[in-house]
Amino acid sequence: MEKVASHPGRLSLAYFIVLILLVTLLLTMPVSSRSGEFTDFNTAFFTAVSALSTCGIAIVNTAAYWTYFGQAVILIAIQLGGLGVMTFASLITMTISRRIRVSQKLLTADELGASKLSEVQSVIAVVLVCTFSVETVAFLMLLPGLLHINSGSLGNSLWEALFFAVASYNNAGFTPDSAGLYINSWSVGLPILLSAFVGTLGFPVILNIFRCTKRLEGPRRWNLHTKLTMVTTMSMVTMSLVWFLLVEWNNQTLFWNSDISSKLWHSLVAAVMPRSAGFDISWMPHVTEQTKLFMSMVMFVGGGSASTAGGIRVTTLAVLVLVCRAAILRRKDDAVFGKRLHTQTVIMSIAITATCGAMVYIASLILLTITQRSLTDILFEVCSAFGLGGYTLGVADPSNPGTLYVLAVLMFIGRLGPMTVAYAISKPQPPQAVRYPAESIIVG
Amino acid sequence: MEKVASHPGRLSLAYFIVLILLVTLLLTMPVSSRSGEFTDFNTAFFTAVSALSTCGIAIVNTAAYWTYFGQAVILIAIQLGGLGVMTFASLITMTISRRIRVSQKLLTADELGASKLSEVQSVIAVVLVCTFSVETVAFLMLLPGLLHINSGSLGNSLWEALFFAVASYNNAGFTPDSAGLYINSWSVGLPILLSAFVGTLGFPVILNIFRCTKRLEGPRRWNLHTKLTMVTTMSMVTMSLVWFLLVEWNNQTLFWNSDISSKLWHSLVAAVMPRSAGFDISWMPHVTEQTKLFMSMVMFVGGGSASTAGGIRVTTLAVLVLVCRAAILRRKDDAVFGKRLHTQTVIMSIAITATCGAMVYIASLILLTITQRSLTDILFEVCSAFGLGGYTLGVADPSNPGTLYVLAVLMFIGRLGPMTVAYAISKPQPPQAVRYPAESIIVG
Ligand SMILES: [K+]
Ligand SMILES: [K+]
Repeated sequence: MEKVASHPGRLSLAYFIVLILLVTLLLTMPVSSRSGEFTDFNTAFFTAVSALSTCGIAIVNTAAYWTYFGQAVILIAIQLGGLGVMTFASLITMTISRRIRVSQKLLTADELGASKLSEVQSVIAVVLVCTFSVETVAFLMLLPGLLHINSGSLGNSLWEALFFAVASYNNAGFTPDSAGLYINSWSVGLPILLSAFVGTLGFPVILNIFRCTKRLEGPRRWNLHTKLTMVTTMSMVTMSLVWFLLVEWNNQTLFWNSDISSKLWHSLVAAVMPRSAGFDISWMPHVTEQTKLFMSMVMFVGGGSASTAGGIRVTTLAVLVLVCRAAILRRKDDAVFGKRLHTQTVIMSIAITATCGAMVYIASLILLTITQRSLTDILFEVCSAFGLGGYTLGVADPSNPGTLYVLAVLMFIGRLGPMTVAYAISKPQPPQAVRYPAESIIVG
Repeated sequence: MEKVASHPGRLSLAYFIVLILLVTLLLTMPVSSRSGEFTDFNTAFFTAVSALSTCGIAIVNTAAYWTYFGQAVILIAIQLGGLGVMTFASLITMTISRRIRVSQKLLTADELGASKLSEVQSVIAVVLVCTFSVETVAFLMLLPGLLHINSGSLGNSLWEALFFAVASYNNAGFTPDSAGLYINSWSVGLPILLSAFVGTLGFPVILNIFRCTKRLEGPRRWNLHTKLTMVTTMSMVTMSLVWFLLVEWNNQTLFWNSDISSKLWHSLVAAVMPRSAGFDISWMPHVTEQTKLFMSMVMFVGGGSASTAGGIRVTTLAVLVLVCRAAILRRKDDAVFGKRLHTQTVIMSIAITATCGAMVYIASLILLTITQRSLTDILFEVCSAFGLGGYTLGVADPSNPGTLYVLAVLMFIGRLGPMTVAYAISKPQPPQAVRYPAESIIVG
C-alpha cells in the first residue's frame, strides 16, 4: 500500500502487463472459443489488450466467436481495466500534487507519511462505489428494453444487461449481440449512451459534481477541472452532432431510415459514441472521407482525465485553446472562470499533445508502409486505437499481424498515458542546483 | 518610419495585400502571357500570391506560359516578398523584445523613442546588403554551368542565372526553364541548393554567423537562436536524407539513374529542396504514400525564423522538443546549450504550433470535401502551401477555383505567420490590473 502511493505510475504499468498476459492465456484456451480449439496468440493478445485498455476494437465477432466463458473473461478484463485506470490516475494526480505541496513546504514530511495509507484506501473505495453505482443504474435501465427485445428470455437479458452496463460505463465497445443492432432501439440505446457519456467525464468530475449537488451547490461552485471538462465535452459533442447533421445528412447508408427523428438519433449516437465508447455502428465504414478525418480528431482528443476514455483528454485540449486565445489576444494570463492555469499544467499539456501527436504520426507512417490502405482509414484506426475509440475500419487485420502489434502498442500507451509510461521508466531527477540563465530566441 | 517600428505587423499585412493586388493586375495583362490574351483572374491571383509569399506553387508552366515581362514581374514579386518578410520579421521581433524591456523598466520611454528610426534604417540596410550579397554569389556561381548548358548563349544564361539566384535565396521554386531538368546537373544544381539552404536559415542567423566569423569566433560563441536553428536544420536535412535513401532507394521513377552517386544526389536534393525551396522535381508525384506524409511534416516545420522559408519554423519545433524532453525526464528547466528558454517563448511556440495545426487540419477537411483527392495528396499540398514548400501534386486545380483560394489563404497566412495576422487584427490589451488565482486541473 505504501508502494502504491509512492510509485503509482510504475505499479500501473505492472498491473496492466500482468493482466494482459493472464487474459491472453485465458483467451487462447479452447474453453474460450465456440469452435473449441485453441485461439492463435495474435488474436488472443490483441483482444486482451483491447479489453483491458477498454478500447474495444474487435477483430473477431465477440458474440459469435467467444463462448460465455470467453465473454466473461473479456467482461472482467474490461472491468479491471476501467477500475485500474481510474484508481491509478487518481493516485498519480495525488502524488504529483503532493510533491508540489511538499516542494512548496506546505506539507511537512510527517503529514506526508501519515495521510498516505488512508488516502489510498479512500480513493479505491470511492472509485469502487462510484463505478458500481453507475453500472447498477445502467443495468436496471437496460433490463426492460432487453427483456422486450429478447421476448422475455430472462437469462439472456440479464447477461446482456450486465455486459452492456459494464462495457458502456467503462467505454469498451464490445457487444454481446452479434447483429449489433440494439443501438437502433431507444430503450436500450439511451441507457448505453448515458452510461458511456458519464464514463467519459472521469471519476474526479463525477465525484465533484456529486458532492456539489449534495451540498445543493450549482455549477458555479464546481472546481476548475470540472468546469473545463464539462464545457469542452459539451462543445465536442455539439460540434460532432452538427457535423453529422450537416455532412452526413444525405448519406444513404448512414441514415437508412429517412425520417428526421431517426436522423437526429443516429447523429446523436455518432456524436457521443466515437468519443470513446466504440459500440458497434454498422455504418461506420460508409462515412465520407472528411468525416473519417473529423472523427480521427474527436477520438484523438478523447474524454476526461482519470476516466475510462482515452485520448489526450478534453482538459489538455482546453489548456491549448486557452493558451492560444491568450497569445492571440495578447493577454498575459490564460485566465478562465476567474482562475488562471499553473505554468506546470500548460507545460504538461504541450508535452502530452506533442508526444501523442508524434506517436500517431509515426504509427501512421508505419501502417502506410505495411498496408495498402488510404491515409484516412489509417489515421482513423490509429486515433481509434490511441484514443481508445474502439472503432475499426479493418486496418487491424489478423492476416497482417504487424498491424495488430502497432495498434496494440498504441492502445497500451493510450491507456496508461505517454507521461505515465515515461515516468515509470525514467528516474526522478535530483533537484537542479543551478538555474541556467534565460536567453531569447525567435520562434514562428 | 515611426509607424513602421510601432506597428510592423499591421504594415506587413498592408504591404503584402497592396503588392498582391498590383502583381495580379500586371499578370492579367496581355503583355504578361505568351498567348497575348488576358489571363483569368484566378490564375493571375494565385500566381501573385504564390510569388509574393515565395511559396512557388505554379499552376501554369512559368517559362512556357509567361512572357519575359510576366517572368520579370514574378521575379520582382519574389524579391519584394522575400525582402518584405525578412525586414518585417526582424522589426516585429525588435518591437516585441523592446516591449518586454519597457515593461520590465529596462528602457526608459526616452530611450525607446530615440533609437527607433536609426534601428529601423539599419535593419533594412543590413537585410538589403545580406540579400544582394548572397544573390550575387549565387549568380556568379550559376553562370558558368548555365553558359555550358545553353551552349554559350549569353542572354539566356544571364537571365536564367539572375532568375535562379533570386528564386533560390528567396526559396520560391519558380523556374525559368520549362523542362525543369537543370537540377540534374551538378554545376547548376549545387549553387541553387546552397543558396536555397542559406535562404532557409533566416537573416538573423546569417548575420550572427557572419559577425562571429568576422571576430574569429567559433560555433560555441553563436547565440542560442543560431545554435538551435543550425542543429534543428541539420537534423531535419539528415533525417530527410536518410528517409529518402531508405524508403525510396528502389523507387524506379525517383532514381531513374541507377548508379549510387546519382541516388545520393537526388536524395540530397529531395532532403534540402522540399524544406522550402520547391524547385521543380519531376518525380515528386511518384513518391510513395508514406514519403508524402513524411514530406508533409518536413514542409509543415519549414525553415528558420525571419527567413524566406515558411512553416512553424525550426526553432518552434526545437522548443517543443525541449519542453517534451524536460517533461519526460522530469527536469524543471528545458535547458539547452547552458541556457534556458523564456516561458513567453514556450507559450508562443505552443500557440503558433496549435494555430497552424488547426489551420492545416481545417484546410484538409475543406479540400477533402471539395475534391476527390486522397488525404496524403491533400495533406502534402496543404503543407506545401502553408509551409511555402512550393511543390504541387495537382490539388491546386484551375478547373476547381475553390482549391486555389483555400491554398492562397494558406500561403498568405503561412507567409505572414498566424501570429502576425492575429496581432495586426487584434487590439493590444491594457495591462491587467488583477491577477487571477491559479487552480490546478488534471490533464492527460
Ligand atoms: K472505447
Ligand atoms: K518555396
